[in-house]
Amino acid sequence: MKFDLVTNDPHSKARAGVVHTDHGAIQTPIFMPVGTAGTVKAVHQRELKEDIKAQIILGNTYHLYLRPGLDILEKAGGLHKFNGWDFPILTDSGGYQVYSLAGTGRKITEEGVKFKSHIDGSLHFFTPESVMDIQRRIGADIIMAFDECTPYPCDFSYARKSMEMTHRWLQRCCERFDATESMYGYSQTLFPIVQGSTYKDLRRQSAEFIASMGREGNAIGGLSVGEPAEDMYEMTELVCDILPKDKPRYLMGVGTPENILECIALGIDMFDCVLPTRNARHGILYTTQGVINIRNEKWKDDFSPIDETLGGYVSSFYSKSYLRHLIKSEEILGSQIASVHNLTFYLWLVGQAREQILAGTFAQWKNEILKKINQRL
Amino acid sequence: MKFDLVTNDPHSKARAGVVHTDHGAIQTPIFMPVGTAGTVKAVHQRELKEDIKAQIILGNTYHLYLRPGLDILEKAGGLHKFNGWDFPILTDSGGYQVYSLAGTGRKITEEGVKFKSHIDGSLHFFTPESVMDIQRRIGADIIMAFDECTPYPCDFSYARKSMEMTHRWLQRCCERFDATESMYGYSQTLFPIVQGSTYKDLRRQSAEFIASMGREGNAIGGLSVGEPAEDMYEMTELVCDILPKDKPRYLMGVGTPENILECIALGIDMFDCVLPTRNARHGILYTTQGVINIRNEKWKDDFSPIDETLGGYVSSFYSKSYLRHLIKSEEILGSQIASVHNLTFYLWLVGQAREQILAGTFAQWKNEILKKINQRL
Repeated sequence: MKFDLVTNDPHSKARAGVVHTDHGAIQTPIFMPVGTAGTVKAVHQRELKEDIKAQIILGNTYHLYLRPGLDILEKAGGLHKFNGWDFPILTDSGGYQVYSLAGTGRKITEEGVKFKSHIDGSLHFFTPESVMDIQRRIGADIIMAFDECTPYPCDFSYARKSMEMTHRWLQRCCERFDATESMYGYSQTLFPIVQGSTYKDLRRQSAEFIASMGREGNAIGGLSVGEPAEDMYEMTELVCDILPKDKPRYLMGVGTPENILECIALGIDMFDCVLPTRNARHGILYTTQGVINIRNEKWKDDFSPIDETLGGYVSSFYSKSYLRHLIKSEEILGSQIASVHNLTFYLWLVGQAREQILAGTFAQWKNEILKKINQRL
Repeated sequence: MKFDLVTNDPHSKARAGVVHTDHGAIQTPIFMPVGTAGTVKAVHQRELKEDIKAQIILGNTYHLYLRPGLDILEKAGGLHKFNGWDFPILTDSGGYQVYSLAGTGRKITEEGVKFKSHIDGSLHFFTPESVMDIQRRIGADIIMAFDECTPYPCDFSYARKSMEMTHRWLQRCCERFDATESMYGYSQTLFPIVQGSTYKDLRRQSAEFIASMGREGNAIGGLSVGEPAEDMYEMTELVCDILPKDKPRYLMGVGTPENILECIALGIDMFDCVLPTRNARHGILYTTQGVINIRNEKWKDDFSPIDETLGGYVSSFYSKSYLRHLIKSEEILGSQIASVHNLTFYLWLVGQAREQILAGTFAQWKNEILKKINQRL
C-alpha cells in the first residue's frame, strides 16, 4: 500500500490524498460504506460502484468468521471473489463486535477474548494472532489490529490498563502479520489503532506508541461511542497532530455528515459508519438541502425527487411521497432506495470536500455547506 | 385496449398475441409481476424494466386504497406517476384480499363487503360501484371486476350462490365503469371474472355469462386456491373453450412454471402470481437447469453463477454460494437478488413460450423444458 499526500488545505489541517492498493486507488478523504456480513445492506454491488461511486467498503471479521466462515471464503478465493466487489476492502478486527454483540459469554484476558456466537451460542476464542490469520484468510486489503474498544464513560484506570493491553496486543498483531503472507497474490497492510478513551494523556501516549510502529496507515478507535462531539474533535485533533503526516489516518465508526467534515478539517482521511444505511432503513435521509424524516406527514404529497441536486438514479427517479409510502409500509424497496440515496450523499460529500481541499477553499465551504445540510426539513 | 391474435399453435390451444394499451404493448403469453402495494417487493423499477423485462405489473386495490390512499394517488396523477412505472398496470379488484386478509371483521352482503383494515382496524365498505371508482382513481390500464373468490373446497350450493352474486356484481361493475371515464387522459378497460369453483356446470355457466358481457378481455378467478392441478387444468380448458378467441384471457394467481406452461397450452394469455417473489425471499430459485433450494448445504461452496444460461445481471454476477450466505444471514440483498432472478426466469419462460408458439414448436418444447426445469437440483 502506498499513500500520496496531494494537498494540504491552507486554512485547516485537511488533506487530499490517494491511497494505492492492489485493488485500485482510493481518493481521500473517503467514506467507506459498511458491509458487515459481506454485503452493504440493501445495496447491489453494481449500485455501490455505479450509483454510489464507493471506492472501498468494509467487512467485519467477527461476522464473516462466523458466517459464511473462513473455509468458504478461502475456497472462494477471498472476500472480493466471494461477494464480487473487486475494489479495496478493509476488515474491522472484530474487537468491537466481540464486546458489543457477544454478551455475557465474553471473557477478556491478556491472551485474548473468549466469546459466544450471537448466531448459535457456540464458543470461540480470538487472539491478536488468530485475528491476523483470519483477516489474511478473508483477504482484506487493509487489516485492522485487534484492540479493546472501551465504552463511554470509562474511568481513567480502566482506560489506561485497556490501552496498555491494546498496545501489547498490537505488538503481537504486528509480529504475526509480518511473519505471514497474503494468500491471494495481492498485498495486505495492517493499521494499528489508537485508544485512550477521552483522556488527553492516554490519547497522546497511545498516538506516540502507534506512530512508533511505523505501519503504512493508522487508525483512531474508541470514539463516537457516546462522548460529546467536542471530546471527539479534541481527541481527534490531538492524535492527528502526533500521527505521521505521510500516512493515511482512519477515524473508526464516525459519523454524521458534520462529524465527518469537522474531522476532515482536523486531518482525518478515512471514515466508516453504519449511520447512513441504518438511518436510511428508518427513513432518515441526508440530502443536499438538509435532513429529512420521510415518515413525517409533510412529505405525503411531495412528489418532487428525493434529491435532484444530488442526482443519481434513486435520488432523482423516486419521489419523496413514494419513498414515504414504502418506508411506512415497511416495503423492502424503501430500505433499498433510502440506503442507496444516503450512501450516494455521503460519497458526494467527501468528494466535494476533496475538491474544495484541492482548490484551497475547504474551510469556508465547510461552514457554508454545514448550515445547509444540517437543516431539518 | 386492443388485442391482436398473432398465431395459434397447431398442436395445442396456445396462442401468441399482442395487447395494446395506452402505456404500451404487451406480448402474450405474459407473466405479470405482482406489485401489491405499488412496489414489486425488493425490486427497483429500473430492474423491472431493464433486467427482468417486465411488460406489465399488478397493483392491488385493497392495499393501495388503504395506503397510500386515493387522495395521494390522485394528487400524484395516478399510480404510474406515483411509482414511476410508465408501462401497463393491472389492478386486482381487492375482492381476494378482503376475504383473505381482513379477517373476522368481514361481512358479505348483496350490497357489498364490509371489512376491517389489517393496518389500523378501521372499518371500510367496498361495493362493485366503489371498487370501479377506486380503480379509476388508482389509474390502472386494466381494471378487474369485484367478485367473490370462493375457497377450496367449496360446496356446490355455496359456489353457485356466490357465482350468481358475482354475476350480479359484474353487471353493477359494468354499469358503473361504462358511466364513468378515465381521469388521467388514457383509456382503461374492465375485465370480468369467471367463477364457479371446481364445478364444471358452474364454470360453463359462468364462462357463458362472462363471454356475453362482451368486454375487451376476460379473466378466470377462483383457481390455484388449493385444488389439485388436474382440476385447475380441467376448469381452465373448459372455460377457455367458451371465452371468445379474439379477447385476451387472464388466469388469476397462477402459478408454478409448470402451471403456466400447461395453461398456456390451454389458451391462457396472461398470468400473475406471488410465487416467484415470495419463494425468492425463502431461497427457492427457479432456474433454466431446475429448482434450487439455496439454503441446502450443497450450495455452500458452489461459486458458479446462479444461472448463467438465463443471463442478466444478478443471475450471472452473483454466485450460488454468496446468495446462500445472504439468504441464511437474512440479508436484504438476498431477497433482492433472488426476486430479480426468479422474475427474470418467469419472464424468460413466457418469452420462450411465445417464440415457440410463433415457430409452431410449442407443444414439443413444453414437454422438454418441463423435464429440465422441474428437476430438483
